[in-house]
Amino acid sequence: MRFEYDEFKIIEKSLDKDQMRLSESIMSIGNEYMGMRGNFEEFYSGDSLEGTYVGGVWFPDKTRVGWWKNGYPDYFGKMINSPNFTGIGLQIDGMDLDLNKENLIDYYRELDMKTGLLTRKFTIDRDGAKFEIGVKRFVSIAKREICAISYTIKSLDKDAKIVFSPSINADVRNEDSNYDEKFWQVIDKSLACDRGYMVSKTIDNPFGVDRFSLAHYMNVKLDGDYKNLETSRLEEDEAISLAYSLDLEKGSEVSLYKTIAVTTSRDYKEEDLVNKAELVLEEAVGQGFDSLLKDHQDLWAKRWKMADVIIKGDVKLQQAIRYNIFQLFSTYYGDDMRLNVGPKGFTGEKYGGATYWDTEAYIVPMYLSVAPQSVTKNLLMYRYKQLDQAYENARKQGLKGALYPMVTFTGIECHNEWEITFEEIHRNGAIAYAIYNYSTYTGDYDYVRDYGLDVLVGISRFWADRVHYNKKKDVYMIHGVTGPNEYENNINNNWYTNTLAAWTLEFTSSMLKKYENRKEDLAVTADELDKWKDIIDKMYYPFDEELGVFVQHDTFLDKDLMKVEDLDPSNLPLNKNWSWDRILRSCFIKQADVLQGIYMFSDRYSNIEKKKNYEFYEPMTVHESSLSACIHSILACEIGLGDKAVNMYERTARLDLDNYNSDTDDGLHITSMSGSWLSVVQGFAGMRTAQEVLSFRPIVPKGWEGYSFNINYRDRLINVDVSKEDIVFKLIEGDRLDMKVYSETISLDGEYTVKLKNN
Amino acid sequence: MRFEYDEFKIIEKSLDKDQMRLSESIMSIGNEYMGMRGNFEEFYSGDSLEGTYVGGVWFPDKTRVGWWKNGYPDYFGKMINSPNFTGIGLQIDGMDLDLNKENLIDYYRELDMKTGLLTRKFTIDRDGAKFEIGVKRFVSIAKREICAISYTIKSLDKDAKIVFSPSINADVRNEDSNYDEKFWQVIDKSLACDRGYMVSKTIDNPFGVDRFSLAHYMNVKLDGDYKNLETSRLEEDEAISLAYSLDLEKGSEVSLYKTIAVTTSRDYKEEDLVNKAELVLEEAVGQGFDSLLKDHQDLWAKRWKMADVIIKGDVKLQQAIRYNIFQLFSTYYGDDMRLNVGPKGFTGEKYGGATYWDTEAYIVPMYLSVAPQSVTKNLLMYRYKQLDQAYENARKQGLKGALYPMVTFTGIECHNEWEITFEEIHRNGAIAYAIYNYSTYTGDYDYVRDYGLDVLVGISRFWADRVHYNKKKDVYMIHGVTGPNEYENNINNNWYTNTLAAWTLEFTSSMLKKYENRKEDLAVTADELDKWKDIIDKMYYPFDEELGVFVQHDTFLDKDLMKVEDLDPSNLPLNKNWSWDRILRSCFIKQADVLQGIYMFSDRYSNIEKKKNYEFYEPMTVHESSLSACIHSILACEIGLGDKAVNMYERTARLDLDNYNSDTDDGLHITSMSGSWLSVVQGFAGMRTAQEVLSFRPIVPKGWEGYSFNINYRDRLINVDVSKEDIVFKLIEGDRLDMKVYSETISLDGEYTVKLKNN
Repeated sequence: MRFEYDEFKIIEKSLDKDQMRLSESIMSIGNEYMGMRGNFEEFYSGDSLEGTYVGGVWFPDKTRVGWWKNGYPDYFGKMINSPNFTGIGLQIDGMDLDLNKENLIDYYRELDMKTGLLTRKFTIDRDGAKFEIGVKRFVSIAKREICAISYTIKSLDKDAKIVFSPSINADVRNEDSNYDEKFWQVIDKSLACDRGYMVSKTIDNPFGVDRFSLAHYMNVKLDGDYKNLETSRLEEDEAISLAYSLDLEKGSEVSLYKTIAVTTSRDYKEEDLVNKAELVLEEAVGQGFDSLLKDHQDLWAKRWKMADVIIKGDVKLQQAIRYNIFQLFSTYYGDDMRLNVGPKGFTGEKYGGATYWDTEAYIVPMYLSVAPQSVTKNLLMYRYKQLDQAYENARKQGLKGALYPMVTFTGIECHNEWEITFEEIHRNGAIAYAIYNYSTYTGDYDYVRDYGLDVLVGISRFWADRVHYNKKKDVYMIHGVTGPNEYENNINNNWYTNTLAAWTLEFTSSMLKKYENRKEDLAVTADELDKWKDIIDKMYYPFDEELGVFVQHDTFLDKDLMKVEDLDPSNLPLNKNWSWDRILRSCFIKQADVLQGIYMFSDRYSNIEKKKNYEFYEPMTVHESSLSACIHSILACEIGLGDKAVNMYERTARLDLDNYNSDTDDGLHITSMSGSWLSVVQGFAGMRTAQEVLSFRPIVPKGWEGYSFNINYRDRLINVDVSKEDIVFKLIEGDRLDMKVYSETISLDGEYTVKLKNN
Repeated sequence: MRFEYDEFKIIEKSLDKDQMRLSESIMSIGNEYMGMRGNFEEFYSGDSLEGTYVGGVWFPDKTRVGWWKNGYPDYFGKMINSPNFTGIGLQIDGMDLDLNKENLIDYYRELDMKTGLLTRKFTIDRDGAKFEIGVKRFVSIAKREICAISYTIKSLDKDAKIVFSPSINADVRNEDSNYDEKFWQVIDKSLACDRGYMVSKTIDNPFGVDRFSLAHYMNVKLDGDYKNLETSRLEEDEAISLAYSLDLEKGSEVSLYKTIAVTTSRDYKEEDLVNKAELVLEEAVGQGFDSLLKDHQDLWAKRWKMADVIIKGDVKLQQAIRYNIFQLFSTYYGDDMRLNVGPKGFTGEKYGGATYWDTEAYIVPMYLSVAPQSVTKNLLMYRYKQLDQAYENARKQGLKGALYPMVTFTGIECHNEWEITFEEIHRNGAIAYAIYNYSTYTGDYDYVRDYGLDVLVGISRFWADRVHYNKKKDVYMIHGVTGPNEYENNINNNWYTNTLAAWTLEFTSSMLKKYENRKEDLAVTADELDKWKDIIDKMYYPFDEELGVFVQHDTFLDKDLMKVEDLDPSNLPLNKNWSWDRILRSCFIKQADVLQGIYMFSDRYSNIEKKKNYEFYEPMTVHESSLSACIHSILACEIGLGDKAVNMYERTARLDLDNYNSDTDDGLHITSMSGSWLSVVQGFAGMRTAQEVLSFRPIVPKGWEGYSFNINYRDRLINVDVSKEDIVFKLIEGDRLDMKVYSETISLDGEYTVKLKNN
């Protein structure tokens, strides 16, 4: 166990130099506007992955492909490492503080999720002379452009010469840069004795993509018992720093407060960036570190009040679900409609891009409940605003309609791997599904009428062109796809994709019936609707009578079918131990595929159908995607497999804290973090909303005492508290609500208790 | 028409600067040991693709992939552009000769295929002063390490100051270098007044692959009416050159003879390279340009005597087939067992690698007839010597047995595109087939016993592990393959692959029966043979009863089946006009797939089966691989579709001369050049050898008067002369032979005439 179990904190009590990258990922903080990995402020000579990111600031890196395929996008958009502004060098008696080399007496690091504060405390021993150092850092959720750091040193045993050198450094690179390019150039900088700024700009690109500029403005204050202060300034090509040299007597301490304002050309004109940053900075500095921190903490308290989940009887699961919620909110809280939920948030650079179908499939269902309705609406509007680009993506494949991208910043596809880019088109269905999910949850059908339908029609047109008619069998088929199970590529008639495609046509048709008057401006013709109807009626769904299961794709049952448990464990994870050839040909499933569809359209299938499919596919699923276990956990609850559900839940919840996939050093699995919340609320509590009625079917898993959570539902805030005996619903805000528990309809106003059913 | 029609020459009468790369490809010369594109000797400022290659000299370039897959090879081996030694700069009155800028009065370039000589003649006009220039160049097939150039200038109108600067230049790059690296470094050089050498070495690599060193030694002689000769030397970092400054009187001419010896570390120790080159060079210089050329021409005459094909009545087809034979022989003549037939030979850098399955499938069947038996045996030995690496390739995929690579120099796989590297495994069958083809043609079963069986057993073991047993259907299947039709990937049960796999097991088993005593040292067990037997008996071959055709793969018939002729021609070629997504899902076939199998196992299938399959697949085939049309041409002859056969033949024969696929500027399609020969001999003449009897079934295509060719068959040289009336067989060398013509058995000794049958 690398991190201590604690209900609201992530604590590290020793410095593990070999796992520095893992700790840096885990200790990431962010405020949607910007964020950074838990890199040290001072110099560190050991292995480390430096990462500071600003939301929506990216670069179109030249693609790297082996063999070009027609239809590939021109560039691969990357969330880029932006100038590092947290740096505070520290010299003690002429020697750099460097935790890779110091003799450490004690070391403590804590991420307080309740308050969003990252703290470090440690003591070093230099030939018998000890120094205590304490650091606090936060990126304010109250003042989004502000990051504040306090850095304190106390000399315990001797008089010492101390030099602080706070800096801003644009000499940063992405480790995943395709051609080792540096993406930034410094265009302006200036230093005064207690402040300084730097303006940097992304380098030019041949794709006509807008460049970004950032201004970083820092202010530095000292506080404490020091003498003989001398300040100096250092301007380098790509960095600026101030140096504060001072004498510290034995037993006394000094604190440096570094406040940084970051402004971007996303919000202001390039020429105004410095002035704007200065304004924001002065206000923040005027307010002071403690007051800034208080505002920040108050807002976090408000967020927790709405979204907290309590798990009784298991501190490690309690910690885990809070960690997931904390990191999700640090990544995205819907303040900026132009942003989305990147797979690594502000915690790493892997995967590039900002937006995946993960948002619609895994984030939307959670955010609907834990954040104001406008937050989810913003996620939907993001896609609405990128509809033109989705049409362009389809056109590049020679297809009609709109194809939402696999990976994107602007709506233009950035991924280039044919089996994914061209074939993993089920993503398009997830975009449609999110509109359905949002509207059935919120009842906000105005959104569908005014915006959603444009998207739905675009996606429907894509499906109608992408299917082909098989004359001989008189069915429509979809060839050449990759389903959610990316361990198979270029398959035909993926049941999930076919289901989602036909469903999209159905939902779009029904919404067009409801909002007839949109047909004209969307230029939907009667012929088009007839064609859609024909596809809906004649879509082909692979099904095996004998087994009674939906078949993942046409030839899946021809495989050598076996169970994961029959594999020697040394084979796992397959993606590290098997060649791609072997993985592709095997029956093993990376993530829920047929079961993903059954989860999404849960109300369409009987429990027997669910059970048959679960029992057929679960044993073949290796869950080597972070997006898989939560779906299995939810379905396991539905069909009464509580133990399995808990097992899947634990895998989901502590994926990063326990570094389950051995890749958290690259960054956190942000988009799958909603999985633990979904497992609790949709799984154990059995919440459903599809039928326009809020309903629950709770169980308490073995070993748990109970759990409780709040949900937002149609202008209400409801607390659900499940114990081993009963379920207590509390209407915290809003009007009376008719809802369902098990098969009972209740009318909630105030508090309502229902006996827990054993299952 | 870019090049003049001529029976034995390729002639270009004007300089087309926009098509310089095409001309350079077409005018390539080589001698298996080395070769080069038709680059000008003198400076040329226009667009050009410089290319000089030395057989077997390559570099392991770092791979470029978007998304790494387990099992990918570490590097991509490339035939690399080696130092350019043909350079002869020319200054006239202080100004460089540069055909991109000169005022050209006339221009003539000729590649004489009969003699292997490249000639250029042109006249320039400089403000009324004309200069005639003539250049001759050849790479000797008599002295393989020698290239000789004569460069003559005559001043027609004035006294002129001439400066020649013959050079060797290692500042060369591959356009297809993955990371723009330069692959050469110069390690030694020296210049004297009439000679100079340079030793260059490939840069280091992280893959443990041996580096290559080359010595280039040049000698320069002048001959003619010149005055005031001054010589000087210029050493640059990566180039050496001599400069000869002289005065040329009006009406007089001067010739420069540049002779270059190239030695390589493939043949000599690095420290001996210069001495060896000097020895070879001195001998060549002693002999003189004309005598060197004569030896070279005599050997070409000998090659033509054995291999020439005469087509009566169509000069453009006559020219084409000779061009193909000429370029093939320039690429490979079996002198060095370590070499093979690269897809671009010495004419370009595309595709990297040296050896593809093309060699076994298309080159072996032709070389068996046109070159000494030892040449083909060497091609087989090449694979035998790489058997260990083939086992290693399979091991990397987690499979038993031997998997021959898609692209290689050393036997280690160099290609990394999962759908090809891991899946286009039918290539392995072609290696086995070539052994069968060689032994049935030559009767040399000792080869099978002593070497072939090792390879056959390795390949059989691969197939036996790569198939999987489908319990439900009680058959063996092969999932996850790419057939010869690369316009479909990751398909299941490709009929061609399944056929070839089972056939390999069958052939290997029968050879093991014949050579029982090899079982022990090859460690073939009875269990293993039983398993093979089971696979042979229960292999699954997709077949459609209704259509009566072998089905390309499991779901091929579910596609939207249509004919190429029903496509608007603006869609063609598909690979330029369609997205990869669309190509993959379409029914259109890049190159013969089922038909490739029917061609290879021609004696297994009835004419009705052939016809049904041909008529089903031909209309869907777009022939966007250079390896396709010849197979269709041969089958068309078999089933009596003479016109179609001619059409396909023309496409094959003049692919490069007519730049049919618009990509000859990258280099020639060397490996498919055998296609035209195969079309004539196996197609029109209907030659077959599989049943251990040489047989013919000739037709004369419409518009042709006749054709004749020689073949080597079991120590005999036989001339076959087909006219509209009859076929005359002549035994030029060797003993009496019983053979078949149509269904008649004849005994050939001297001359034998058979009436031509109309079909």
